[in-house]
Amino acid sequence: MPRRIVIIGCGVSGTTAAFHARKTDRTAQIVLLGDEELPEYSRCGLPYAFSHVVPNLEALIGHDEAFYEQMNRIDLRLGWKATSINTEKRSVEAIRTKDDSTETIEYDALILTTGARPSTVPVSGSDLKGVFTVRTMNDIERLTNHLAENNARRVAIVGAGLTGSEMAEALLQQGIAVLEAEIVPEILPVVLDPDMASIVRTRAEEHGVEYHLQSTLEAIIGVNGRVSGVRISGKEHPVDAVIVAVRVKPNTELAKQAGIILGESGGIKTDQRMATSAPNVYAAGDCIETYDLITRRHVFFQLSTTAVRQASVAGINAAGGNAKYPGSTGVTTVKLFGLEIASFGPTTALSEKLGIHPASVRVTGSTRLPYYPGGKDLTVKLLADPKDGRLLGAQLVGEEGATLRANFASMAGHLGLTVEEFEQLETCYSPPLAPVWDPVTIAAQALLRKLQTSQAKSRPLTTVEN
Amino acid sequence: MPRRIVIIGCGVSGTTAAFHARKTDRTAQIVLLGDEELPEYSRCGLPYAFSHVVPNLEALIGHDEAFYEQMNRIDLRLGWKATSINTEKRSVEAIRTKDDSTETIEYDALILTTGARPSTVPVSGSDLKGVFTVRTMNDIERLTNHLAENNARRVAIVGAGLTGSEMAEALLQQGIAVLEAEIVPEILPVVLDPDMASIVRTRAEEHGVEYHLQSTLEAIIGVNGRVSGVRISGKEHPVDAVIVAVRVKPNTELAKQAGIILGESGGIKTDQRMATSAPNVYAAGDCIETYDLITRRHVFFQLSTTAVRQASVAGINAAGGNAKYPGSTGVTTVKLFGLEIASFGPTTALSEKLGIHPASVRVTGSTRLPYYPGGKDLTVKLLADPKDGRLLGAQLVGEEGATLRANFASMAGHLGLTVEEFEQLETCYSPPLAPVWDPVTIAAQALLRKLQTSQAKSRPLTTVEN
Repeated sequence: MPRRIVIIGCGVSGTTAAFHARKTDRTAQIVLLGDEELPEYSRCGLPYAFSHVVPNLEALIGHDEAFYEQMNRIDLRLGWKATSINTEKRSVEAIRTKDDSTETIEYDALILTTGARPSTVPVSGSDLKGVFTVRTMNDIERLTNHLAENNARRVAIVGAGLTGSEMAEALLQQGIAVLEAEIVPEILPVVLDPDMASIVRTRAEEHGVEYHLQSTLEAIIGVNGRVSGVRISGKEHPVDAVIVAVRVKPNTELAKQAGIILGESGGIKTDQRMATSAPNVYAAGDCIETYDLITRRHVFFQLSTTAVRQASVAGINAAGGNAKYPGSTGVTTVKLFGLEIASFGPTTALSEKLGIHPASVRVTGSTRLPYYPGGKDLTVKLLADPKDGRLLGAQLVGEEGATLRANFASMAGHLGLTVEEFEQLETCYSPPLAPVWDPVTIAAQALLRKLQTSQAKSRPLTTVEN
Repeated sequence: MPRRIVIIGCGVSGTTAAFHARKTDRTAQIVLLGDEELPEYSRCGLPYAFSHVVPNLEALIGHDEAFYEQMNRIDLRLGWKATSINTEKRSVEAIRTKDDSTETIEYDALILTTGARPSTVPVSGSDLKGVFTVRTMNDIERLTNHLAENNARRVAIVGAGLTGSEMAEALLQQGIAVLEAEIVPEILPVVLDPDMASIVRTRAEEHGVEYHLQSTLEAIIGVNGRVSGVRISGKEHPVDAVIVAVRVKPNTELAKQAGIILGESGGIKTDQRMATSAPNVYAAGDCIETYDLITRRHVFFQLSTTAVRQASVAGINAAGGNAKYPGSTGVTTVKLFGLEIASFGPTTALSEKLGIHPASVRVTGSTRLPYYPGGKDLTVKLLADPKDGRLLGAQLVGEEGATLRANFASMAGHLGLTVEEFEQLETCYSPPLAPVWDPVTIAAQALLRKLQTSQAKSRPLTTVEN
């Protein structure tokens, strides 16, 4: 009897798990259940299809159904929703949305890639026509139609994180004004310290984003059941639609109902093999908690890059292989208004919350030597733990070169390098491509001096201010 | 009495050593001797000033004399040539070129940054007017004048390494045809394997470079004492000038005469503190041999990035500090005809010569996901030692992203990571900036499979062919 592997969720994690299971076991039966009617598509690409940088939504689809079924012999069941799991009987109950037909599917191994869903906001008017989240193709289609039908001039975005900021740019590119409300004092609070984020905010404001920071969305106002405005911190603003981009929550209901253990963070708990507490049940992607190699605790990164790595490990192991996922540094990048913004590791605020009082420096260098045309400013902030000199994080903002340098710094974080070790790593140079001393190295040198000065003062536990 | 630090050589190494010595000892007397009449300028920038991408040669000068003398209290002596060193008396004899006046300069610490010089070719006609090397501003001025005076149409370049290739592009940009002769079968033999170099050669040929590979320059032919052609492997070609870009040799005469020990490679031998065999004498840059962290032997890298790091260590230690230089991976980058070409570690041919029989893979990925416009092909070759799985080298060629990814791979080489460890390092993703799986990661995965297959076959010492 061939092994039967059932995968719940047909996002990038489910699909990646399926393909890796297939590579590992050429004879397994693989059933892939997706509750949308479409095969896997790039969620990260949605803002770019919305803005037409990518020609259309269909372009985001990774593979057509034939690729799953004929080329990889994966039993792809789209429009099927799993409703319960019985870990003793090793079976999944599923329902087909279009005709409510149900089926019990037995498994030898099960992989949960149930993903996450956007939060809504608990204010009056949040059920009005014209309130959107941005997670699915359907969301984007509905948003696009609503904006067109209402000849929309202005949109409110709740949340100034990655998705909210990408949508702000996409709206402005289409000539629609943007008002963005964020509860904390500065944008991009998860990936950047305020001094770094302010560089991005200034650029976004130049492009027309109207920010309302330290502000609370109090109500969504409607006329005839349709959004006509928002009240933010006591003031009303007319808008034609509201995009809620505040937080994404793991879909853990199925796991919880099946008695699978969740972590303290609320995500499904797995070991390094991506195995859950239930025998032969694995999980990966946005529905699980990920081990953070830097802060050494379990968190939600909810990044595609962590998802695909976890999913490949889950797929291999579900198919009888033996792979491990060590954890992540949370290295992230985003492009906004011509700036690359990349980072890994906790912000200063999060570090402080975790009891680490980081030493940090911020330097602005150029991506070329001064004499060579076309060099761009790159601002680099590095954080270290003054107790052991370990590199804790890097935040980079500039018109080029932030993304790949974040990977460089992230490797040092992953490996637990000290700033002293990090500073010694050579980088290559050529006038058209890179400067003799890389901005990241210059920042590392400055941080090393700061750490050494701090040590010399024999106050090992003092906070080093930036 | 303040410490007197004498530095011989005012290139990027001498200057860097001087500034770091000054930072380390605010009261030292620092004497910096340079035999050219100009303060330090970027040698790597010469091809770009020649092609006018950089507006003029003066733009390459790092700092004006006032910056040395007034701002850093460095006694900058331009047009002074050191003629001998007495390590017992701790003194340097120097002569001023313009008036032959001499001086004995005593030192407490001496730093040798005497650099290197280009080789010439031992063929008839090499003393004709119109034969050039490319090392100094004066070389570029003479070349520029010669080409203009002779209304040059075609130039022969001997050597298809980094400098020869950069000069080929710079000549073509000015409408001058280029014939490039290289003794080995493929271009860029020091930094790339032939399969990778052929990508660059094809591009260069599309831009008009006429290569003569596996060819020997037999004679330079002249009319009225001026170059009129070259004979390459038996065939004559009319040219208006010859650029010899074959190899750079360390200037070690002064050190040798002073009894300072040279390494087996022929460069000055130093320890990690950049100390030579003579007390209080340090050395850095192109005149020394560098410890290669990958092949674990001493070599000539002659890179600006290694030079400045060595020089800063030499400067700090000469001024009473305590710094160390661990060695280099030789990570290098160059831009040719719109391609970034970057690498670290030995080529396959060099590895074989050293008794390592590397496993390798070559993959071509894209710098974006397929749906996002503007992604560029990036070809990545990775080499590993099959005995221990250690990453030995990376070679990258593509229109973007090679340089910074070479740094990423080089860090792994510097730290001695195995391919398995390297493959687990996460990279960040966003549609406009980077793909979910980086081409370097894809290559690492392929190489890991190859190494594992090879191990599974239980032939631990077999060569894994690419």
